[in-house]
Amino acid sequence: MRNLLVTIRFDGRAFHGWQVQQNAPTVMQTFQDALQAVLKDRPDVKGCSRTDSGVSARMYCVSFKTESTIPCKNLIAALNVNLPKTVAVLDCREVEGDFHARYSSKGKHYCYRVLNSRIRDPFLEGFTVHYPYPKDIDAEFLNRQAKSFVGTHDFKAFQNSGTVMEDTVRTIHSFNVLRSGDMIEFHVCGDGFLYNMVRIMVGTLIDIAKGSIASDSISDILASKDRKNAGTTAPAQGLMLEEVFY
Amino acid sequence: MRNLLVTIRFDGRAFHGWQVQQNAPTVMQTFQDALQAVLKDRPDVKGCSRTDSGVSARMYCVSFKTESTIPCKNLIAALNVNLPKTVAVLDCREVEGDFHARYSSKGKHYCYRVLNSRIRDPFLEGFTVHYPYPKDIDAEFLNRQAKSFVGTHDFKAFQNSGTVMEDTVRTIHSFNVLRSGDMIEFHVCGDGFLYNMVRIMVGTLIDIAKGSIASDSISDILASKDRKNAGTTAPAQGLMLEEVFY
Repeated sequence: MRNLLVTIRFDGRAFHGWQVQQNAPTVMQTFQDALQAVLKDRPDVKGCSRTDSGVSARMYCVSFKTESTIPCKNLIAALNVNLPKTVAVLDCREVEGDFHARYSSKGKHYCYRVLNSRIRDPFLEGFTVHYPYPKDIDAEFLNRQAKSFVGTHDFKAFQNSGTVMEDTVRTIHSFNVLRSGDMIEFHVCGDGFLYNMVRIMVGTLIDIAKGSIASDSISDILASKDRKNAGTTAPAQGLMLEEVFY
Repeated sequence: MRNLLVTIRFDGRAFHGWQVQQNAPTVMQTFQDALQAVLKDRPDVKGCSRTDSGVSARMYCVSFKTESTIPCKNLIAALNVNLPKTVAVLDCREVEGDFHARYSSKGKHYCYRVLNSRIRDPFLEGFTVHYPYPKDIDAEFLNRQAKSFVGTHDFKAFQNSGTVMEDTVRTIHSFNVLRSGDMIEFHVCGDGFLYNMVRIMVGTLIDIAKGSIASDSISDILASKDRKNAGTTAPAQGLMLEEVFY
């Protein structure tokens, strides 16, 4: 049995997230359909993360075991022929037998994009959130605020309230907020993320920009371990999985 | 009566071009629906050009006359509320009574985008044409070839064969082909364009890159005035109307 690691890119607008669901197109299902067409077999595939409906990935990793002897290069081409235009296989390589796309991951880089302009942009629809208020989000100020997330913390307050996760301690390696023209990018790298954690961290920073959450309160919110003290969950379509580290 | 010039941006994937059609959504119809909601009237609108199904516009201009006294700034906001996310009004201003979005135009800038990479990109789908062959389109070579289009010529050979247009003389001010990473951009500015002219000029350049049309033959093709000597009509989705000059 070969263990393969496949890197894909997908436009999240077309899918209800990664995980297979009844009656809704998901990336996993779409990818397995392509595998089935090429391998005449439907291997169990492991994705590097759950992703919410509407979230896109510049780089998403999938591992699966197969008896197939098709060389990786040919597999890339054959899968791309069998995938819709909303998904592309970028790379394929053979990995150790115990490699697992999710559990072997050492970390991830997410970017959340906010278009802070008076008028929305049809070309960026689905990959950004349009945020016309306040007129000018101060990215430098938010960049300083975001530094409170960096380090090893219990992120229980920044987890979707419906989730039960025993270990809520995670390490954020970096959190940078940058402005480029009307676009504000929230770049966050960490060893792992709780459910909705990036969207709640970004939503909290935007609430700080709006003044509905006090400045310099992120450390207190973390310490409270209470979801009610953190901010809004920012909408899914602004989120992009940029890179997975192994 | 005020004469208004409105600048819009639209994602061409959502529309069957500008001009109103039976049973197919068009930009004109969508824009008139928004006008009707705001003005309680459906003025006759003039678009700066016909655009093919699937072609997008970073800047498209529309003029129309109205008795409405709504200030331009408020009109921008109200129209945007009433438009789908695939269209945005960027600007609105009052112009002279004899101004006409199409006939007053002094020229236009189009860009045609080709993704010259082994693997297609889901994020660029609909705004580019994926062209994996030949492995490396030589943009500098095509840039030199494209210079034969510059100047005042009879472009009859570069007009859709089904079209009857008396005057087929047009002036191309500039034609530049640039590569940026895997993206090749064909930028062309001219005083006016015949039906499908940009797509046929780009298709001819790509045919020259492939070797199916001889190098340095553009002047001869122009002189022949015969559509059969020019190349393929490049697909609509690579084309973007970038700017309209008045």
